[in-house]
Amino acid sequence: MFIICLDLEGVFTPEIWIEVSLKTKIEELKITTRDEPDYDKLMKKRLKILKEHGISLKKIQEIISEMELLPGAKEFLDWLRSKTQIIIVSDSFIEFAMPFMKKLGYPTLFCHDLETDGNGMISNYRLRLDDMKRKTVLALKKLNYEVIAIGDSYNDMGMIKEADHGILFKPPENVVKEFPQFPVTHEYSELIEILSNHLNLK
Amino acid sequence: MFIICLDLEGVFTPEIWIEVSLKTKIEELKITTRDEPDYDKLMKKRLKILKEHGISLKKIQEIISEMELLPGAKEFLDWLRSKTQIIIVSDSFIEFAMPFMKKLGYPTLFCHDLETDGNGMISNYRLRLDDMKRKTVLALKKLNYEVIAIGDSYNDMGMIKEADHGILFKPPENVVKEFPQFPVTHEYSELIEILSNHLNLK
Repeated sequence: MFIICLDLEGVFTPEIWIEVSLKTKIEELKITTRDEPDYDKLMKKRLKILKEHGISLKKIQEIISEMELLPGAKEFLDWLRSKTQIIIVSDSFIEFAMPFMKKLGYPTLFCHDLETDGNGMISNYRLRLDDMKRKTVLALKKLNYEVIAIGDSYNDMGMIKEADHGILFKPPENVVKEFPQFPVTHEYSELIEILSNHLNLK
Repeated sequence: MFIICLDLEGVFTPEIWIEVSLKTKIEELKITTRDEPDYDKLMKKRLKILKEHGISLKKIQEIISEMELLPGAKEFLDWLRSKTQIIIVSDSFIEFAMPFMKKLGYPTLFCHDLETDGNGMISNYRLRLDDMKRKTVLALKKLNYEVIAIGDSYNDMGMIKEADHGILFKPPENVVKEFPQFPVTHEYSELIEILSNHLNLK
């Protein structure tokens, strides 16, 4: 039996931090896991910048709630959920992701969460688990699932390599070059074609 | 972080085999895990009866597609999914459960599947995993989730005992007597009250 693990940002939604950077006009918030593979370094830097500029969790949530899904994302996910079981596996935080979950029809989401201080500023982030995406795939394999993993970036490669079938979706050039063993897709229609074969759909 | 594992039949839907028994007028199909805790014995017996009466998978799927969710089930699940992450964990089969998943808005479902022969008769059942409900809770705990498990019957007790918090929903008297350590609920409003406390909701 199949289960599909899909990344959130870059697969169903735009990158949150890039949007926050645009809306707050803070250029240095633009770096993502695509640029800095060390997630802890990246997050510490982001939280430091937010603090320096006095940007609260509420302000970020306001920015996120105005963001749209990628065009066709909901339709793709609806198709997928009618055919098989899926889990969204994201290194983002529940406080950021829930407005998107509502727009996607509340698929099950595995992610992390945030700590805030008395002033509503993000004081820290809590990884539910280190190397979470890969460990999620491992746990599902142990539950006797044949796992398909779909993601776009460095922080997805653990789960994509661990899965029975890994697929890249809209990856940057450096990821494509570094991991030539995985099929590369750019449109949901290409994902549907590959998945239909895996899932043995007519 | 919380995740909630919920049984399907008895929690969100009526018991499928009881409905099949009523519609086919085969009295002996009425036994469930409530009566026979040994699931393999129970299933072998059911498949033998279906074969004897010439009842195909398609016929059973027709019966299921006419079944309704329990009153308030969809609203309860919608509330739950807006607050936290959930997985439906069922010892039923994907071929039986999908019409209900559609009605519930495609929550993620962990279950088993069926084999059919050339005549469309169910020839065997495939457990994805033995002791699946308990092992699902174990896997989620290892992924650093605080697990709440909700079920009604004998085949749920593995997951309910393994979870950080177990809750019985509409259980039969024998289950209540045998497992007095777990809170007993009969209405979704009672579940919402207990869960609101666990999830620390205002």
